[in-house]
Amino acid sequence: MSQFKNYISLPITKIVKDGISQQDDNVVLEVPVTLFLNGEEFVTLVCSPQYLKELAVGFLCSEGILQQPSDLHHISINEEDGIINVEATQGQAEKQFMKRYITSCCGRGRSSFYFINDARSMSRIEGKIAISPQQVWNLTTRLEEKSTLFQNTGGVHNAALCTPDDVVVFFEDIGRHNAVDKIFGHCFLNNIIMNDKVLVFSGRISSEILIKVAKMSIPVLVSRSAPTALAVDMAKELGMTVVGFARGNRLNVYANENRII
Amino acid sequence: MSQFKNYISLPITKIVKDGISQQDDNVVLEVPVTLFLNGEEFVTLVCSPQYLKELAVGFLCSEGILQQPSDLHHISINEEDGIINVEATQGQAEKQFMKRYITSCCGRGRSSFYFINDARSMSRIEGKIAISPQQVWNLTTRLEEKSTLFQNTGGVHNAALCTPDDVVVFFEDIGRHNAVDKIFGHCFLNNIIMNDKVLVFSGRISSEILIKVAKMSIPVLVSRSAPTALAVDMAKELGMTVVGFARGNRLNVYANENRII
Repeated sequence: MSQFKNYISLPITKIVKDGISQQDDNVVLEVPVTLFLNGEEFVTLVCSPQYLKELAVGFLCSEGILQQPSDLHHISINEEDGIINVEATQGQAEKQFMKRYITSCCGRGRSSFYFINDARSMSRIEGKIAISPQQVWNLTTRLEEKSTLFQNTGGVHNAALCTPDDVVVFFEDIGRHNAVDKIFGHCFLNNIIMNDKVLVFSGRISSEILIKVAKMSIPVLVSRSAPTALAVDMAKELGMTVVGFARGNRLNVYANENRII
Repeated sequence: MSQFKNYISLPITKIVKDGISQQDDNVVLEVPVTLFLNGEEFVTLVCSPQYLKELAVGFLCSEGILQQPSDLHHISINEEDGIINVEATQGQAEKQFMKRYITSCCGRGRSSFYFINDARSMSRIEGKIAISPQQVWNLTTRLEEKSTLFQNTGGVHNAALCTPDDVVVFFEDIGRHNAVDKIFGHCFLNNIIMNDKVLVFSGRISSEILIKVAKMSIPVLVSRSAPTALAVDMAKELGMTVVGFARGNRLNVYANENRII
């Protein structure tokens, strides 16, 4: 399905103050994709119908199921039916998928990580990179320019892995998590190092997005939108730099401003 | 936790073209909440820390697990640890939670519904209601006025159940699904009829949001943002009216314009 375009034209009724017209409008495509892991139904994602291999691999990396290239034994994609079969090394992460980490008798621990797989696997982000505010604004402008699907439909989020000066990998998807997972998958499949890069993102920085980017070992996360307090807490705990409301000529640094020069 | 405010003030570094300043910024709260259903860990939601009862009940309604008031036997909420225990009537929906509906040997069926619980339970939306474009614009303006948490933090979505002339129930949440689930839960708990109302929403209309609103039997869904093609397909199949890009003095009708007068 990768060769198909990612939106279609649909007849709509457009109403403005002064009148009504029938016209065609570009509407973004959305498809369900079900991932079977070692023969068992694992998860159904709804996504833009491109780069399903990157999506599946990135999702499994993000969930801690794929940790190194040798963990991925086989992947087959049936685009027509939206079915992906993955054979992978089996481990604890598969069993504890989406299970809550509940601190035991001694009360709440220091960690703000709420899933078992995250609480066990998160480690401090040591990546060294320095980026200036002007470089951040240049990248957010580049992201907007590249977002042709958003320009056509208004219905997607986008994410880009960048050096301080340029975009390295870029994806758009109707799901903001998917856009980031596709980057994770692409980098895993192509051995692209992430711990010296910046992730520039159109969506809000929730804890789930922050955890995903931390697992990618990316030291700087930039968004044109707002972070949550939990995401800021986690970023401080992990040593990750978080920049929000990066648009026009302004930005806010919420954590670890040492990487902004 | 309902009595707490839903954002906190954090020290940030604000950078604009001309300079840098240290100041405080309002950042929206986000908490993990784990729902145990009949003693088993069922799901962990990340959400704004208010109206957790409405959220849990709405989520279970949306998943088809609560279908009538007598299905809800008991609910207890531990706000400190983010744990909700629900005792409910057990049925098929619980076992098939998030399981994909895969059409069998005869090829793809007509239905666009991809989860078993949805494909089995969806029925045509017959609700009769008529609303004018000016009433839609009045409601979207009201929604913006009521969104004080968004005004303070920029980090939430909001949803409102409305008559053509006024807002009946309103919630903001860091998760767009949660805002809608809280409306579903509130209406279930308070016996509020939804099939003669409009849902006005700040977020994009994905298939997941459309399915949720269809389960609430709400005949008109209005958003200030874009729908996906799959959501429009489902709306046409279900007889639901979908209005997108409702902001300022414009709107687009994507499906079943008969309810827009």
